[in-house]
Amino acid sequence: MDYQEVLQQARTCIGPFCKACPVCNGLACKNTIPGPGAKGIGTGFIRNYQKWQELCVNMDTICENLPVDTSFSLFGHTFAAPIFAAPVGAMKMHYGDKYDDLAYNSILVSACADAGIAAFTGDGMDPAVMAGAISAIASADGDGIPTVKPWDMDTIFQKLDAIQAADPIAIAMDIDAAGLPFLKNHQPPAGSKTVSELKEIIQYAHRPFILKGIMTVRGAEKAMEAGASAIVVSNHGGRVLDQCPATAEVLPSIAEAVGNRMEILVDGGIRSGMDVFKALALGAHGVLIGRPYVTMVYGAGAEGVQIYTNRLMAELKDTMSMCGAHKLSDIRRDMLHSF
Amino acid sequence: MDYQEVLQQARTCIGPFCKACPVCNGLACKNTIPGPGAKGIGTGFIRNYQKWQELCVNMDTICENLPVDTSFSLFGHTFAAPIFAAPVGAMKMHYGDKYDDLAYNSILVSACADAGIAAFTGDGMDPAVMAGAISAIASADGDGIPTVKPWDMDTIFQKLDAIQAADPIAIAMDIDAAGLPFLKNHQPPAGSKTVSELKEIIQYAHRPFILKGIMTVRGAEKAMEAGASAIVVSNHGGRVLDQCPATAEVLPSIAEAVGNRMEILVDGGIRSGMDVFKALALGAHGVLIGRPYVTMVYGAGAEGVQIYTNRLMAELKDTMSMCGAHKLSDIRRDMLHSF
Amino acid sequence: MDYQEVLQQARTCIGPFCKACPVCNGLACKNTIPGPGAKGIGTGFIRNYQKWQELCVNMDTICENLPVDTSFSLFGHTFAAPIFAAPVGAMKMHYGDKYDDLAYNSILVSACADAGIAAFTGDGMDPAVMAGAISAIASADGDGIPTVKPWDMDTIFQKLDAIQAADPIAIAMDIDAAGLPFLKNHQPPAGSKTVSELKEIIQYAHRPFILKGIMTVRGAEKAMEAGASAIVVSNHGGRVLDQCPATAEVLPSIAEAVGNRMEILVDGGIRSGMDVFKALALGAHGVLIGRPYVTMVYGAGAEGVQIYTNRLMAELKDTMSMCGAHKLSDIRRDMLHSF
Amino acid sequence: MDYQEVLQQARTCIGPFCKACPVCNGLACKNTIPGPGAKGIGTGFIRNYQKWQELCVNMDTICENLPVDTSFSLFGHTFAAPIFAAPVGAMKMHYGDKYDDLAYNSILVSACADAGIAAFTGDGMDPAVMAGAISAIASADGDGIPTVKPWDMDTIFQKLDAIQAADPIAIAMDIDAAGLPFLKNHQPPAGSKTVSELKEIIQYAHRPFILKGIMTVRGAEKAMEAGASAIVVSNHGGRVLDQCPATAEVLPSIAEAVGNRMEILVDGGIRSGMDVFKALALGAHGVLIGRPYVTMVYGAGAEGVQIYTNRLMAELKDTMSMCGAHKLSDIRRDMLHSF
Repeated sequence: MDYQEVLQQARTCIGPFCKACPVCNGLACKNTIPGPGAKGIGTGFIRNYQKWQELCVNMDTICENLPVDTSFSLFGHTFAAPIFAAPVGAMKMHYGDKYDDLAYNSILVSACADAGIAAFTGDGMDPAVMAGAISAIASADGDGIPTVKPWDMDTIFQKLDAIQAADPIAIAMDIDAAGLPFLKNHQPPAGSKTVSELKEIIQYAHRPFILKGIMTVRGAEKAMEAGASAIVVSNHGGRVLDQCPATAEVLPSIAEAVGNRMEILVDGGIRSGMDVFKALALGAHGVLIGRPYVTMVYGAGAEGVQIYTNRLMAELKDTMSMCGAHKLSDIRRDMLHSF
Repeated sequence: MDYQEVLQQARTCIGPFCKACPVCNGLACKNTIPGPGAKGIGTGFIRNYQKWQELCVNMDTICENLPVDTSFSLFGHTFAAPIFAAPVGAMKMHYGDKYDDLAYNSILVSACADAGIAAFTGDGMDPAVMAGAISAIASADGDGIPTVKPWDMDTIFQKLDAIQAADPIAIAMDIDAAGLPFLKNHQPPAGSKTVSELKEIIQYAHRPFILKGIMTVRGAEKAMEAGASAIVVSNHGGRVLDQCPATAEVLPSIAEAVGNRMEILVDGGIRSGMDVFKALALGAHGVLIGRPYVTMVYGAGAEGVQIYTNRLMAELKDTMSMCGAHKLSDIRRDMLHSF
Repeated sequence: MDYQEVLQQARTCIGPFCKACPVCNGLACKNTIPGPGAKGIGTGFIRNYQKWQELCVNMDTICENLPVDTSFSLFGHTFAAPIFAAPVGAMKMHYGDKYDDLAYNSILVSACADAGIAAFTGDGMDPAVMAGAISAIASADGDGIPTVKPWDMDTIFQKLDAIQAADPIAIAMDIDAAGLPFLKNHQPPAGSKTVSELKEIIQYAHRPFILKGIMTVRGAEKAMEAGASAIVVSNHGGRVLDQCPATAEVLPSIAEAVGNRMEILVDGGIRSGMDVFKALALGAHGVLIGRPYVTMVYGAGAEGVQIYTNRLMAELKDTMSMCGAHKLSDIRRDMLHSF
Repeated sequence: MDYQEVLQQARTCIGPFCKACPVCNGLACKNTIPGPGAKGIGTGFIRNYQKWQELCVNMDTICENLPVDTSFSLFGHTFAAPIFAAPVGAMKMHYGDKYDDLAYNSILVSACADAGIAAFTGDGMDPAVMAGAISAIASADGDGIPTVKPWDMDTIFQKLDAIQAADPIAIAMDIDAAGLPFLKNHQPPAGSKTVSELKEIIQYAHRPFILKGIMTVRGAEKAMEAGASAIVVSNHGGRVLDQCPATAEVLPSIAEAVGNRMEILVDGGIRSGMDVFKALALGAHGVLIGRPYVTMVYGAGAEGVQIYTNRLMAELKDTMSMCGAHKLSDIRRDMLHSF
């Protein structure tokens, strides 16, 4: 099976909102929530994808003909590539009945670990979701990153306590989940957190902490001040606020401001190894990919994850070698045209 | 009923020119006048809408988790949100037989007052239109803004005299109505007014006076010189002159020039609370929304006005909280990307 | 009859290449030559039209409410508006059998004179074309501008001799006709002329001389040096060379360079009085309009010319009054947005 | 037969991937490989074509009316025009069964020589391809340029040895062929070469050497350092790496950096003599054209090559004369608008 065949298979069991499109670019699903679309008029997802496509790479093949190494280190762990599966939740509501969050995470986490990368898991109203994620990560020897929603402080502390059992690489919080309707109306109040609240959370977590949902230099500086080890430059795939800039648009200035002092990951519309290369050239250290891993799991389970990850790595290697980069640290911003 | 259901209902009784489109963006009606379209080749309306969509907002959820307050003060009055229904006239000609101007204004003015905002009313050839508007505003305890067309001076003075009975918040004049065909051929001559004529009118009005139809810095300065308390940056929704810039394009420089010395309102293609947020970030203090309130009244009368206003306020609150603004004065220009 | 009705009538007798489109913008005819299209891949005409549309005007109605005067002087003659019908030739080949060049010019010249403007006439292989034009202009008391192609010098001198009988306002040469296939292969050789050849021609003509087909500052300076009284900034409607810039793109720099020392006319995609206003704001003193006058003559003869000219003047007046210009000399570049 | 008739004929025997489109612009074939499309999502080819179209030329016909001379010298040889047929290989796989590489090259090389220009020939896995190319070039008295793929050094030396028999004008290497799948997996390893490896190859070749596949200033400087006499600014028509900039985008800076010290050729989306003019105005000395020559050979063999070459020369001459350039060295960058 190749990538397109897995997609074809996914079309038989995913839906009705996701169409497992040949290119996952936000056009067919637009603003369908429930479903994989974006908030408001639905252009957030489309713009994320489009802005990567507008970047051009500088080919240069006058160089040594060496093998290309995509290996990536984060928090003392080494991965086959700077790629993570992004956290996705409420699978039944958005992608159809084939999987609930527990079944999805259980396939995804181990398949990613087997493919040499790692998955972020999501969080949910039902405590069983986080419990399942913890057990999936524990089974993968900690190769996974649980993501806690910005609940009230007490709930967060309880979740952090439970997470320690999985001994994960790191812990993440999608701080921009404040924009999700179910969180907005939650009792006790959930959502935005101040720097000092985040400091408390991060000290309590006692592990490398990743703040996901940063879209401004100022936000990145607050994340640093709060003690985060990494940020994910992300607009939640357009699902928490309409008409944000694309992540590719804000990444360069954020990377310039804090990139030498913390790890920078990015997500939003990254679909190919070429896109991964561009993200790294703009200053990210690694990327997260969300919706495409969903279609892979629906289409072919663990095998789908492997097929897509291999494809991403092959495309990344190809782009690197054609631009004269033989390891990730060789990728420079001037490998993009007009930068 | 939600917003889309009211639109669906409107489609059964509005028309034939207005289609009560899912998004009111000037594409379907284009240059239909009579009808809700724009003048000339009809791109004025389309551009107004489009330019708001091109602006992106800077999400930042690392902040206090506070309730958001959209309350707005103008001329000593407080409103639930910085939103007004714009003046619309000749309802039967442009939107169909269900309502004449009197019936429309009578529903709109009280429904807006009930929703915590206020309506501008229009003016017409038939003196009964202004008389009806005055009585509707009086019934709403002055919560409404009558708009006088730029007739000859004597007619204006007579209308201003009559308006005092309604004790309205303010009085407006759509100075750009000079471009409407019926006004162009009016006897005695109507249309453009000099600064000194406007001074005379404004002194006579003896109330906060709003000049609507300002599209340049120089026009704004003349409005100030004439003694206007506020301007509406507006191209009359594209209906008085083809191929004006969008209001979103001229608002920033006008706000920089006079924004700290007078109130600035803006209209043209504003459809969502996200658009309202962008207008305020560009320097407006409040906005007017025209055509969408028409479809709401045709679809569901006062209830439609309430549903749409609630929706606008919810969207505005959501955007504010996701960008870290908890009251209107927190909204800054740098909450827009690339500003 | 109004403009759209004349067009509708034209559709019954024009063609098969010209479709008498609602808006004459080069899309339907594209690269049809024979026919009204443009050379090469046909984008020259389309771009001409498009670039006028991209300009926006600055509305400002805080001004005196005065009548608008569009009267225009050129070489001591006064016209109702700064508008000329452009020279068009080979009517049967490009627009259908209804008219040959003689019949077309004979209607056009007198109808333009009656409408208060003037027509440029074309030239052709057949000497009868120029002879007919001369007689049409003579009948209109010299109210017309014969256009001589850049033949060999002797032929030009003979044509200039013959033209004197018509006592025309001025004489023009479309120097860019060098790009027309029939001229390229002409014997004796025709086409490009040097400054010194043009000097000789212009002195011989002994009347105000208009060089048509100037697209660069350097070309305008050469026209001045050769003694031309006026230029027409023109790319021959895209018919002599593919992928020229639009005339609206090159007009501003040409006007800055020579606009205070010679008359500047412009053509290419000008369709409405709004477009005329924009051309004047960019520095032109007057405009030529070609294809639309053809459809008017095919549709309704002299009446069509009158209807379209009235429409252009009404649109020009409307735009002027809405931008606060009461006579042509009031039109300034800063009446365009971003200029 | 004219160009469109040859294309029509080609449609009966080419395919199934190539459609012999009226304009060969990458839209219909997109990312079909096998076939004439581009790699990845297929936009490389489309962008190449598009960027030439976006350039506008400055018409100026006030000049001497002289014949236009397109003759071009390279490495002591003179050609009728600065145009080469580009190397294309694996004809059966990409364009259909009518021709194998040997038959194609044998027609193309002699037809180009007869038309006054020269062809580059391709290379292949099967040694017979290069052998056939050598024999075709020898038969044309050396009027052709064999292109060696970047094999391992030994294979390259053997190929260079064999090539000497043809006594060709020059020898080329498409260094960017490193991105072709079959080369990537070749044993012994083929692909990228260092400057010092290229030095060795070029010294061994002992003839003017052309490095094809340069897309950056730095790559051009490395080519110079390695001793190349010429480069081809090329992204291999989008077939070796997705989302490169168009060659028209990188040509100006490369020409500025090395254009006075080495010959610069360019390919990618050049289809007309107008495009050739633009390439020369941006600093190239000559151009290569690939896919269109394939459709010409499929459609009409040697006659097709002649027809298309004549057409290109006529268009080039026409553009030159309309911009006031009478020989290639008259073409200046300021003959393009906004340069």
